[in-house]
Amino acid sequence: MKLAVLGVGLVGGSIGLAARKRVAAQVVGFDPDPPTLRTALELGALDAAAGSVAEAVAGADLAFCAAPVSALPALVTESLGASGERTGVSDVGSTKQGLADAVSDLEQGSRFIGGHPLAGAETSGVAGSRADLFEGARWFLTPTERSSGIVFDRLHSFIADLGAKPQAIDPAEHDRAMATISHLPHVIANVVAAHAAETLAAADRRPELGRSFRDATRVAGSNPGIWGDIYAANGAVLAEEVRSVIEKLQAVVGPLRAGDRESLEAWQADAAGYRQSLLDADRPGGALSELRLAVENRPGVVAEIALALGRAGVNIEEMSLDPSTDERTGAISLWIAGEPEAARASAIIEGLGHSVTILSGGG
Amino acid sequence: MKLAVLGVGLVGGSIGLAARKRVAAQVVGFDPDPPTLRTALELGALDAAAGSVAEAVAGADLAFCAAPVSALPALVTESLGASGERTGVSDVGSTKQGLADAVSDLEQGSRFIGGHPLAGAETSGVAGSRADLFEGARWFLTPTERSSGIVFDRLHSFIADLGAKPQAIDPAEHDRAMATISHLPHVIANVVAAHAAETLAAADRRPELGRSFRDATRVAGSNPGIWGDIYAANGAVLAEEVRSVIEKLQAVVGPLRAGDRESLEAWQADAAGYRQSLLDADRPGGALSELRLAVENRPGVVAEIALALGRAGVNIEEMSLDPSTDERTGAISLWIAGEPEAARASAIIEGLGHSVTILSGGG
Repeated sequence: MKLAVLGVGLVGGSIGLAARKRVAAQVVGFDPDPPTLRTALELGALDAAAGSVAEAVAGADLAFCAAPVSALPALVTESLGASGERTGVSDVGSTKQGLADAVSDLEQGSRFIGGHPLAGAETSGVAGSRADLFEGARWFLTPTERSSGIVFDRLHSFIADLGAKPQAIDPAEHDRAMATISHLPHVIANVVAAHAAETLAAADRRPELGRSFRDATRVAGSNPGIWGDIYAANGAVLAEEVRSVIEKLQAVVGPLRAGDRESLEAWQADAAGYRQSLLDADRPGGALSELRLAVENRPGVVAEIALALGRAGVNIEEMSLDPSTDERTGAISLWIAGEPEAARASAIIEGLGHSVTILSGGG
Repeated sequence: MKLAVLGVGLVGGSIGLAARKRVAAQVVGFDPDPPTLRTALELGALDAAAGSVAEAVAGADLAFCAAPVSALPALVTESLGASGERTGVSDVGSTKQGLADAVSDLEQGSRFIGGHPLAGAETSGVAGSRADLFEGARWFLTPTERSSGIVFDRLHSFIADLGAKPQAIDPAEHDRAMATISHLPHVIANVVAAHAAETLAAADRRPELGRSFRDATRVAGSNPGIWGDIYAANGAVLAEEVRSVIEKLQAVVGPLRAGDRESLEAWQADAAGYRQSLLDADRPGGALSELRLAVENRPGVVAEIALALGRAGVNIEEMSLDPSTDERTGAISLWIAGEPEAARASAIIEGLGHSVTILSGGG
């Protein structure tokens, strides 16, 4: 397998290291910063350093754009334009809808599938690259109806080979969920830190910062370059989230002013329930079953299945796609954890008009 | 020394244990719940169980009221009324102004000095009592102009003998600072958890909760009984804090909606400065650096790292372990004071075969 990595910081460098070590891929890298590119080569993240995007993507099976979010539309466009029709292009940005929009009108857009590994976002620098950065990490993929099934399958398999857990999700849904789970907590941490700095600067004497404060502000101000990009790219969604939090804060001002102990205690108990429900939803589990099906090999069919399962909350642990020799049909295998989940997945896929065989214990 | 402990939950029980072990005090306890009182006696937190407040405080040098915040005005008043003029009375409640107001008109008010140890606030139950609960912990005292100097001196010495760090602070200033540092983060955590539970319940598919979300909501919903009391007792101050946070959130909605990358990046950089200034004020010995490493999630790996650092005399200021979703690996963060120490710690950990990233500025 030939791999192009465009941007060899922490994530790009780690993709290179992992791909060389675990997939024996041949990795060609490009970075606009020559010292960074040299370091990546020295660290063994690359087999070769290219002098341009075009040189890096030539003949690649997959090209990963690992630049800051604001630079991705131009980089993905350039990568698609410079690469041949066999090359799948992906990225590792933290927001997905804006990029999907930017690529949607491109002729070669079917070869692009957005991605987002939940690993390493808060640090930067090629020196921190590790072959195991993605071990066990979720890696979102955002195929659209136009997306090539062959590219999706190649990308999905490659990411699983890196040790990560790929999962298809709609770009808008991805951005909304990430706003809630990641971007909003960063905004809140900033605000709490700013408020405390002001308030406590006026105090003669103050308590040491306790654990609840440290937890609440741990990510405040982290990596302004990266986070300025993320906030801006997901700004519309994030603004809505902030408005919702403001409303919830406004609702508690009255009971606080009134010193209404009973209602504040009930409110606290509700929060305990919310937190528990969120943590409960995080628990995975179950043995893998393999679902095998034959599909027409047209663009969008794999994405259609992956999205339908995603929408129903079924996680695809592993996936493989074997095109038939005439490329008109393909055999898809999906591995799902837990027999009830596998049965549910089967019913969903049959609802889309495909015939499914379940092989339990596969995987 | 003779000590009365009124309310023998976690904090009261630990005062008894520490006083008997470290000061060889004679400790008499009272609790309205007979089984709790029996347990405290069995655990060795008390020399004797009294049948009433009056019996407990008779002849005491110091009496500690360790009841929920809402029960303190009545309990302190009763303790002052039932005890002789030699007995100093204190409490361990998380808010101080309301109690100071309640006691200010009492004839015996000069014998009362409020207190607040920053330890054990989030758990309850005598079974968790420990003689070392206050070891190294800040313990605020809130004397007023009326307060007896003899009582203050006795209380201050006793608390230092327990291993805690006593410090005098104005009650209003205490409540303002605790609102910022402790109560507000709890309110915010509740709101973020509630918002996320609503938003994500509507999502078909969501990312696993990451570290920033877990940090932001760790204290959501903790101990509704205790926290309903605290919110109500400090409600007026806390309401002002919440208003200030709302204003700060409103200020960022505009730049988010506009996708104004430059101003959002500057805002993020400001937050980094605020966080750093807060952490620096806490650490006269040097700014904190965060060391982040990924490790195999097996028993003993954390201990191995902590022991190696301990052997080399490197102090870990703070630590967090975040298992990945599949629990096979974990991200460890260690905070070390002073850049040279952080570099030394990094070298030691790398010597154990782990790869370390140093994030200066406390992460």
